Amino acid sequence: MNKNSSNTMALAPNTSNKRETVCIFGTGDFGRALGHKMIQSGYPVVYGSRSTQISNLIPKDAEVLGHTEAAQKASIIIIAIQRQHYNFLTPLAEVLHGKVLVDISNNLKLNQYPESNAEYLAQLLPGSKVVKGFNTVSAWALQSGTLDASRQVFVCGDDVEAKQMVMNIVRALSLTPVDKGSLLAAQEIENYPLQLFPMWKLPIFLSLGLTVFFFLYCLVLDVICTYIYEKNNFAFFIAIAIPNRVCPVVALILLALVYLPGIFAAIIQLYRGTKYRRFPDWLDKWMLCRKQLGLIALAFASLHVVFTLVTPLRAFVSWRTGKGIISQALNNKTEPLNYTNAWISDSYLALGILGYFLFVLLGITSLPSVSNNVNWREFRFVQSKLGYLSLILCTAHTLVYGGKWFLSPSAYKWYLPNIYILSLIVPCAVLVVKFVLIIPCIDKPLVKIRQGWERNPKYSE
Amino acid sequence: MNKNSSNTMALAPNTSNKRETVCIFGTGDFGRALGHKMIQSGYPVVYGSRSTQISNLIPKDAEVLGHTEAAQKASIIIIAIQRQHYNFLTPLAEVLHGKVLVDISNNLKLNQYPESNAEYLAQLLPGSKVVKGFNTVSAWALQSGTLDASRQVFVCGDDVEAKQMVMNIVRALSLTPVDKGSLLAAQEIENYPLQLFPMWKLPIFLSLGLTVFFFLYCLVLDVICTYIYEKNNFAFFIAIAIPNRVCPVVALILLALVYLPGIFAAIIQLYRGTKYRRFPDWLDKWMLCRKQLGLIALAFASLHVVFTLVTPLRAFVSWRTGKGIISQALNNKTEPLNYTNAWISDSYLALGILGYFLFVLLGITSLPSVSNNVNWREFRFVQSKLGYLSLILCTAHTLVYGGKWFLSPSAYKWYLPNIYILSLIVPCAVLVVKFVLIIPCIDKPLVKIRQGWERNPKYSE
Amino acid sequence: MNKNSSNTMALAPNTSNKRETVCIFGTGDFGRALGHKMIQSGYPVVYGSRSTQISNLIPKDAEVLGHTEAAQKASIIIIAIQRQHYNFLTPLAEVLHGKVLVDISNNLKLNQYPESNAEYLAQLLPGSKVVKGFNTVSAWALQSGTLDASRQVFVCGDDVEAKQMVMNIVRALSLTPVDKGSLLAAQEIENYPLQLFPMWKLPIFLSLGLTVFFFLYCLVLDVICTYIYEKNNFAFFIAIAIPNRVCPVVALILLALVYLPGIFAAIIQLYRGTKYRRFPDWLDKWMLCRKQLGLIALAFASLHVVFTLVTPLRAFVSWRTGKGIISQALNNKTEPLNYTNAWISDSYLALGILGYFLFVLLGITSLPSVSNNVNWREFRFVQSKLGYLSLILCTAHTLVYGGKWFLSPSAYKWYLPNIYILSLIVPCAVLVVKFVLIIPCIDKPLVKIRQGWERNPKYSE
Repeated sequence: MNKNSSNTMALAPNTSNKRETVCIFGTGDFGRALGHKMIQSGYPVVYGSRSTQISNLIPKDAEVLGHTEAAQKASIIIIAIQRQHYNFLTPLAEVLHGKVLVDISNNLKLNQYPESNAEYLAQLLPGSKVVKGFNTVSAWALQSGTLDASRQVFVCGDDVEAKQMVMNIVRALSLTPVDKGSLLAAQEIENYPLQLFPMWKLPIFLSLGLTVFFFLYCLVLDVICTYIYEKNNFAFFIAIAIPNRVCPVVALILLALVYLPGIFAAIIQLYRGTKYRRFPDWLDKWMLCRKQLGLIALAFASLHVVFTLVTPLRAFVSWRTGKGIISQALNNKTEPLNYTNAWISDSYLALGILGYFLFVLLGITSLPSVSNNVNWREFRFVQSKLGYLSLILCTAHTLVYGGKWFLSPSAYKWYLPNIYILSLIVPCAVLVVKFVLIIPCIDKPLVKIRQGWERNPKYSE
Repeated sequence: MNKNSSNTMALAPNTSNKRETVCIFGTGDFGRALGHKMIQSGYPVVYGSRSTQISNLIPKDAEVLGHTEAAQKASIIIIAIQRQHYNFLTPLAEVLHGKVLVDISNNLKLNQYPESNAEYLAQLLPGSKVVKGFNTVSAWALQSGTLDASRQVFVCGDDVEAKQMVMNIVRALSLTPVDKGSLLAAQEIENYPLQLFPMWKLPIFLSLGLTVFFFLYCLVLDVICTYIYEKNNFAFFIAIAIPNRVCPVVALILLALVYLPGIFAAIIQLYRGTKYRRFPDWLDKWMLCRKQLGLIALAFASLHVVFTLVTPLRAFVSWRTGKGIISQALNNKTEPLNYTNAWISDSYLALGILGYFLFVLLGITSLPSVSNNVNWREFRFVQSKLGYLSLILCTAHTLVYGGKWFLSPSAYKWYLPNIYILSLIVPCAVLVVKFVLIIPCIDKPLVKIRQGWERNPKYSE
Repeated sequence: MNKNSSNTMALAPNTSNKRETVCIFGTGDFGRALGHKMIQSGYPVVYGSRSTQISNLIPKDAEVLGHTEAAQKASIIIIAIQRQHYNFLTPLAEVLHGKVLVDISNNLKLNQYPESNAEYLAQLLPGSKVVKGFNTVSAWALQSGTLDASRQVFVCGDDVEAKQMVMNIVRALSLTPVDKGSLLAAQEIENYPLQLFPMWKLPIFLSLGLTVFFFLYCLVLDVICTYIYEKNNFAFFIAIAIPNRVCPVVALILLALVYLPGIFAAIIQLYRGTKYRRFPDWLDKWMLCRKQLGLIALAFASLHVVFTLVTPLRAFVSWRTGKGIISQALNNKTEPLNYTNAWISDSYLALGILGYFLFVLLGITSLPSVSNNVNWREFRFVQSKLGYLSLILCTAHTLVYGGKWFLSPSAYKWYLPNIYILSLIVPCAVLVVKFVLIIPCIDKPLVKIRQGWERNPKYSE
């Protein structure tokens, strides 16, 4: 079979009677796993290897030949070898001319080399059509069939037709190809499997920073201050009492930070009188991690809920309750019900429950499979309308809870305000500005701007 | 390049060496965003515009020409202009003849025009092949790449081949095309992004109605009645105590309403002796919104759980508990443990927890990504068997909780039954009829009918 | 239209101007539903039936002909009849020669026949190309459009081109084809819709066994033993108190069992000095059901959380608390706060909350739609690192909770250890061995082995 005929066959995958032969260079773990899966899906597979002796690890039904012979048999060659050994391919340049080479390699570090492995391969063999792909799938997943992590195979390449052929193979293996464009995207694709929650980094560091700050703040005010002035050692507060103050504060601030960039964006658009200028970089980045901020806020809110619900189980709380009742009993009197307290306690609990309930709804709606089933209007209704309602309810919950202490001097130990007073600054600011922004005389020009109207059309050029 | 050759190219997208040129009429937000995305995916893009001066908002690498010249360059033309301006296309009828026109327009209101925009376009240009599509995707989502809402692109059109070409583009942009059939479906597709949870409307109104009714019912019985007869102002009950009575009642009734239509369907099939006649319309509608009813019931049940768990944190409850203990202490006696009470309290709590647990399982199984991973037998097992078990447990929970008050006259203030007595009517009716239906002598003919057997075959013609 | 031309048409689905005609043998429920859906998607449909009289159940726009005439009109024939009647197809062998036959049948029992229905069909008609498919979709789902359960259509067949044609139809119906290889896979595909959570069987039986064992153990120690020695009838403990001891124990053991097979695998690999030998069968099976084990453990842990949170609502607990306070009041003294108790109670609550929180995170990450959006590094980070952290926290929670009783003789009623002492055996063993395995001098060779290094290369041949 000469080179031309194999190429012709590959050009018309849909009209050929059989699946075209695929060649795999390299018999390592991934090469074997991929070959095994391809044979299952009906592709004839031929391995190109230095030693052509049959190993029992190579899938049976696969042929093992020398590199040159194997490459001649197929129009698609999967390069399952490491970047360091790519230069052994240069002598094969002629036989690989016009073939589709699939670079499946991964690196050990982000941006390990100046250019991506696929671009390096394309430089070595300028006559071949290099396509990047398969590097996001693990050998183990291919073998065991349990593709719990991503089924998405990112594919990129300069030759559209070669890319199409590789994407057809991806589909035949029951994976989902995602076209990422030209070979310039290879660096990004190679970095992808090395990433560890890149979108989550900023929100996680921010929330950790806030947590540490407020934890120390509470530690000083509640434990150290109490110890110095009242000689009470409440060190055990660091297990539940202090976390249960820090969590709601961080949750409320993070939730407000989800809606703050939208406020900034509206103000910037109003000020500029156009939407056709890019936001500053920090605002763009902030807007793209709003979902992550919101989910971390939800996690902190959930911890707050559980920490609050276990309160009656704490030995300290039982002791304090008992002490209060006993002192009443020993004084031979029963205190009457304090209606104001009953109102306040029931109100902030109810507000908190409803706010948390809406917050959980937001979280469920942001699950990929749920958000795939709603249209844009529904998604924005939930994330914007219900989100603001949740923020209002949670802010009200904090206000009602701490309201009575705002003016009490005992809330300002060492002249420092109590922690929930700090927690209210950002949410209240967001809500006040938002209420200003929805006043009709301000809302109307904003809507016009967002529909494309420009105050000073010079910006648009 | 003449028209014929560009058409030929388009007819064979898989065998062409390059992706075919796409023309976009209109340089508005969506036109630009779509063009940008297409260039990324390897399509040459040419814009058709009145003013051909280069704007810096148009993606670079895109050509901008007059409408006629642009249309001649491509076989697919995306009409990114508003319906009001469609009639400017009529002079271009000749150059657009035989071309694929993609109508991506949306309206501002449901059913704004008598015919859909795509059908209107097809009437204006009878020689072109109109395909509806892309209207469910937002410009912002295309630009930012964060397709949190639907990746599904609904496509419809009368020409199968033209539709196929558009669906290939959709796939190339990493979106999921969904074929909705002929151009008659355009109205539905245009209405889709304007909908706000259409399947949820009925269940939400129903549950809101039930909530308001039971809330007022409780308000009258628990607050107003107590105030008139006992001069106690328990107005703060409206924050937690009354919601915590209303939520479980609404949840239980809604859960029973999920299984009621199945009961009706079985009775109707038994009565008619065939399954080959349509159910009445109201029953069809009811059956299609069972999932939504169930999820709202779950939301109410979850609120009930949280409202119940915060009980010990309420100032009123602490006061009441303290009062009881102090009165015992002042009388110098300790009441012995009431074993019956201990049994009842532990039983209804355990029944409620297990019922709620199964209910949450049902909710998780109805997540799209989970239900996609089970087969029909498993889905029906969970939704039917476990669902009924959950209904039985929740009904038993209510019966055990309120059992002792059924015959007590104090439960009938103002001759009105207590709220949980009302809540038991529908669930008990559903369970009783279901138990009758699974008696073998009734179940057997039902199974036969559902397998296609007919008592009076005349119905089937 | 002769046979050849229809075949030619089918060979080039992408270049034909119309969708090819599909023939359906059989007018039962599924045949009608499938035909209806196909007509919606633009396929001309012709039914092959014994009686060609028009029934009003057959979708209009569909033609009804005799079997031979119908088969001649199409190159794809869907066999919507039951296996028992397949032999009536043998006389049609000539007209079916070269056609694609789609076997959509299901059986009533697993492995009902020695060979699959599709293989039986292929034996009867050796000249036809048999493809298995569509059997996982229900008629009702096709009709109502509410595909809540799986949209996946498993397809297998020996002829690659025929399979491709069927997969194109599947895609056109907005379903997802999954290629399962040659016709040998038909048995598996036919068994699929009859399965009831096959992966869950072992974990469910295991957890039920553990639950029953520990329930009886607690019943004997806490209820029967107390009744015999102290004459206290605490039978109501079986509603909440005992389940709340059993649930955490089973949850902790199951969570440890998730990580135990990984430990075994590491030891086996270290011992063998290679990763290229299969693990024993029991270990393979165990490793494949780790996700299910973990989710069941999460369910038990959730029950434990709710059971614990309702504690203050129990009549028995209120009575016990009241009794303690009254006895203090009657003795005219207030016990001082026991700082050690306060520390222990707050610590184990906090450890439990954090452990459960991480556990819930693991559960959310294992949702298919979430795990599809993370890469392998992220998935393994969450499932391995966070999983071990959760196991450590939960074990510490149990240790701190029960720590003081370890050496107390009262914890050994009837010489039997208390239940939480039993629960700690497996988790502590897993954690200790894991800590040994991550010591550098042991971890290093393990990493090398997992990268493909072999101590005794003879194993690899």
